[in-house]
Amino acid sequence: MSQITIFGNGHMARAIGVRMIRARHSVQILGRDGEKTRGLVEDLGAGASGGGEEAVVEGGIVFLAVPYEEATKVVTLYGETLAGRVVVDMCNPIDLGTFDGMRTPAGSSGAEQVALHASKDALVVKAFNTCFAATLEAGQVAGQPLDVFIAGDSQEAKMKVSAVVAASGLRPIDVGPLRRARELEAMMLMFMGLQVSPHHENFNWDTAVKLLP
Amino acid sequence: MSQITIFGNGHMARAIGVRMIRARHSVQILGRDGEKTRGLVEDLGAGASGGGEEAVVEGGIVFLAVPYEEATKVVTLYGETLAGRVVVDMCNPIDLGTFDGMRTPAGSSGAEQVALHASKDALVVKAFNTCFAATLEAGQVAGQPLDVFIAGDSQEAKMKVSAVVAASGLRPIDVGPLRRARELEAMMLMFMGLQVSPHHENFNWDTAVKLLP
Repeated sequence: MSQITIFGNGHMARAIGVRMIRARHSVQILGRDGEKTRGLVEDLGAGASGGGEEAVVEGGIVFLAVPYEEATKVVTLYGETLAGRVVVDMCNPIDLGTFDGMRTPAGSSGAEQVALHASKDALVVKAFNTCFAATLEAGQVAGQPLDVFIAGDSQEAKMKVSAVVAASGLRPIDVGPLRRARELEAMMLMFMGLQVSPHHENFNWDTAVKLLP
Repeated sequence: MSQITIFGNGHMARAIGVRMIRARHSVQILGRDGEKTRGLVEDLGAGASGGGEEAVVEGGIVFLAVPYEEATKVVTLYGETLAGRVVVDMCNPIDLGTFDGMRTPAGSSGAEQVALHASKDALVVKAFNTCFAATLEAGQVAGQPLDVFIAGDSQEAKMKVSAVVAASGLRPIDVGPLRRARELEAMMLMFMGLQVSPHHENFNWDTAVKLLP
């Protein structure tokens, strides 16, 4: 059991919180909207605590369960507080108006931008962006454990994330250096586009990408 | 039953040929190496025929089961012969030396480059690049039909490809316009990288990407 901090109190924060509590980690939820944060902490139950922006970051692993722009702001704001910690970027910086492009600079990724804004000693890892909240909270799809694709430049950080992923009943897959986040995010441009497409009535944010067998 | 032409006589040509013959299409294999082409035609059995570069293209659907650079050459060479036909680009223009970049110009894709080199009346579609030859030949993974992701600017062409995909026992998924090939190819930079990685002993070109459930 170790301490996990989650920035955010929305669907993805809830989903990752549920998984981490199931894995018997203690979970600190940090969100700006105090009421929403308290509601999530209550729902998560024993092992969960909450706080606002002034709170001391307790987790050795910090999940950024917030949109891309917010993620870069959070790591900027917390500065050296995140040094030595594993910082997990989960964002999909897709243009949500068109599902036809990214909000990141060409030749980069949300995760790399987060790393640029973070303390140089923060261990930034990309993970969980290919998991939709509902399937992540359920922890499985079609009776099989979700795949969690992990990219990062620190082997130690990826091993820590892989350990909590496995402990929460999911399958960690190390896909290489942090720049592989470009492909992880590009994938989701396509797969998120399918969820909103009127041509695909069967895809409703309840799918998951699996490597089979 | 309709006529399919396949350029190439390697693993992917064999896999797509097996699927098309199973779907009761007749298959024309066009390859430069006559002996290899004849061998594949023999293996495919009834319904298959072969030819060299001088052969008349018989298929209304033409699969480019050749590497990226070869695909652009083939569509250039055949010029207006391909006008009005559905041309299926299957390539993964990955840098195979590093698995860390693409061989295509930035902001493009193999499929879009093929379209640039082809007759403006050829109906270029991206499909099958996410299927490895062995799983494609088997037609299933873990007891489930393979997903075939299809991108293209012609709805009519995508419907024709979807029909032959479904007839061959696989699940067609229309992912949008031809430029979605960028994401389909980017995905494979990552997923092909896993197959060759010494850290992933379990991934040996026998996996498949599925959207579950």
